[in-house]
Amino acid sequence: MKDIESYIREIPDFPKPGIQFKDITPLLQDPDAMLETVSRLIEMIGDVKIDKVVGIESRGFLFGTLLAQRLNAGFVPVRKPGKLPYKTYSEVYELEYGKDTLEIHQDAIKKGETVLLHDDVLATGGTARTACNLIKKMGGIIVQCNFLTELSYLNGRNKLRGYDVESLFIY
Amino acid sequence: MKDIESYIREIPDFPKPGIQFKDITPLLQDPDAMLETVSRLIEMIGDVKIDKVVGIESRGFLFGTLLAQRLNAGFVPVRKPGKLPYKTYSEVYELEYGKDTLEIHQDAIKKGETVLLHDDVLATGGTARTACNLIKKMGGIIVQCNFLTELSYLNGRNKLRGYDVESLFIY
Repeated sequence: MKDIESYIREIPDFPKPGIQFKDITPLLQDPDAMLETVSRLIEMIGDVKIDKVVGIESRGFLFGTLLAQRLNAGFVPVRKPGKLPYKTYSEVYELEYGKDTLEIHQDAIKKGETVLLHDDVLATGGTARTACNLIKKMGGIIVQCNFLTELSYLNGRNKLRGYDVESLFIY
Repeated sequence: MKDIESYIREIPDFPKPGIQFKDITPLLQDPDAMLETVSRLIEMIGDVKIDKVVGIESRGFLFGTLLAQRLNAGFVPVRKPGKLPYKTYSEVYELEYGKDTLEIHQDAIKKGETVLLHDDVLATGGTARTACNLIKKMGGIIVQCNFLTELSYLNGRNKLRGYDVESLFIY
């Protein structure tokens, strides 16, 4: 088994002072490490049928489509405003300074579908929470919030109370 | 064989008047259509060893990692400024009004590696050309510029002269 954690590079003070950024690009460069990562993300889910994998723009797209294919599920992008071309639902969320918005296509999730939310990192949890709110509003059943890495000192889990939150590497 | 083209939705005048946008999100929602799409994108490449698949932010990430896994190649993201956390090479390119910049990590491609450039759409060709310039500057050998869709009325191919340009669906 590959030591995939050794492929994650720490970048101090990115994107701002105090954040030890986890750079997954060395992992992406190695096809065996990618394969192993997908398998281990899938293991965290257990034996549940997933209808849709929702990935958050843009790094959530990287493993999102791979997870969707392995689970034989559809893939749904959640994006920043103005990027999705069809009819959308949107939700505003608070940032440290100011606000931001996430959007999802109105035909992306049907009522009662099971959903895996995926992103590469759980940081403050703001975007993940907003994505969960959108999925719930559409009647989707969130089976798990699934992350490759988690910066636990940012307490993102607190924003995701009530959901199954699993991260492959917790820092 | 699935009629995958029927999963691509046309959105008139997006993101601006005169552009018939090709929305691939209905295709992403169907796992069989995704699988078939990856196979057909791979068929366009032929029997050449690919070391790295380069995907352009952010829709180039969607099929980019899937192509990389199927080809047993590494995946390399090309991103907008300030998104890549490690040392980068960057190149400025002209837009209709103004300029933009693309970046790539300096350790992403080694001299002599074979590269597949992938994006979901070939439009004016500006970003694809800029990505090619970055890859060439690093000593990568561009085997093919590989697109899911091509808006031929925007003449993007003219900007990619000298490269093998293949698109699955040409409009």
